[in-house]
Amino acid sequence: MRILGIDPGTGIMGFGVIDAKGGKTTLVDGGVIKTKVHQPLDERLMEIYRHLASEIARTKPVVMAIEQLYFAQNVTTAISVSHARGVAMLAGKLAGLEIAEYTPLQIKQALTGYGRADKKQIIEMVHILLGLKKGTIKQDDCADALATAITHSMTARVK
Amino acid sequence: MRILGIDPGTGIMGFGVIDAKGGKTTLVDGGVIKTKVHQPLDERLMEIYRHLASEIARTKPVVMAIEQLYFAQNVTTAISVSHARGVAMLAGKLAGLEIAEYTPLQIKQALTGYGRADKKQIIEMVHILLGLKKGTIKQDDCADALATAITHSMTARVK
Repeated sequence: MRILGIDPGTGIMGFGVIDAKGGKTTLVDGGVIKTKVHQPLDERLMEIYRHLASEIARTKPVVMAIEQLYFAQNVTTAISVSHARGVAMLAGKLAGLEIAEYTPLQIKQALTGYGRADKKQIIEMVHILLGLKKGTIKQDDCADALATAITHSMTARVK
Repeated sequence: MRILGIDPGTGIMGFGVIDAKGGKTTLVDGGVIKTKVHQPLDERLMEIYRHLASEIARTKPVVMAIEQLYFAQNVTTAISVSHARGVAMLAGKLAGLEIAEYTPLQIKQALTGYGRADKKQIIEMVHILLGLKKGTIKQDDCADALATAITHSMTARVK
């Protein structure tokens, strides 16, 4: 099963594509979509949409696993992230992908078995679970997106 | 100039299309897009997108005027509305429309000259400015969307 993981954001959106087969996960692709702060919101959303749509067309995942918002952050951030998150979900949906949502807690627990794991531990586990050398994934948002995809591979396997 | 006004929301999104010519505004179309609370968010966003895309294809506006979020509302509502708002903006952008954003204050001032006007006064002014009999527009969200479109017609005229 090919899974596209998304760590949503307007300024920087992480994405990561993995293959999950027989309990093993491997890296297919990953990166970040960056948009400029001074750019109008409609143009930033369009850019995010186009990048994601082309990533989906190129790598052909069947599921999008997307991180849910952490509600304790401030309203302005929540509003900004939610615009981008809506557009990301739509990009997946329009391409016929199943959409699965995971909370930060679910992701932490799936990867480390521990709900209070820190960013460093998550990034380390992403490398271990994908069989990558330490430091291969350089961008935190890309690692978070891959962590979300891995969470889906584990959750979907248990179901 | 044909303008599509949008009052964003996930459960209920208002839309209204007007023609603005020589300082006169007339009603072209208007209504609301409703989605069900128990439906998954990705399906609701898809439904909103499809409705808006078909409304744009049918009425062919050149601009989308969309209400900005009122930041004082609670985070959960802000997150929900922002997902739908991002999708609405993308629907306009993908169809080649110019996107213009207006705050509730700008809309109130444009229609009534008074920043603290209430909902009833806005709805009354929408009817007057579109030359409609009182009570023609039955849905508040549709009236709000038309108010946003009218605001753009006034602002664009002054520019």
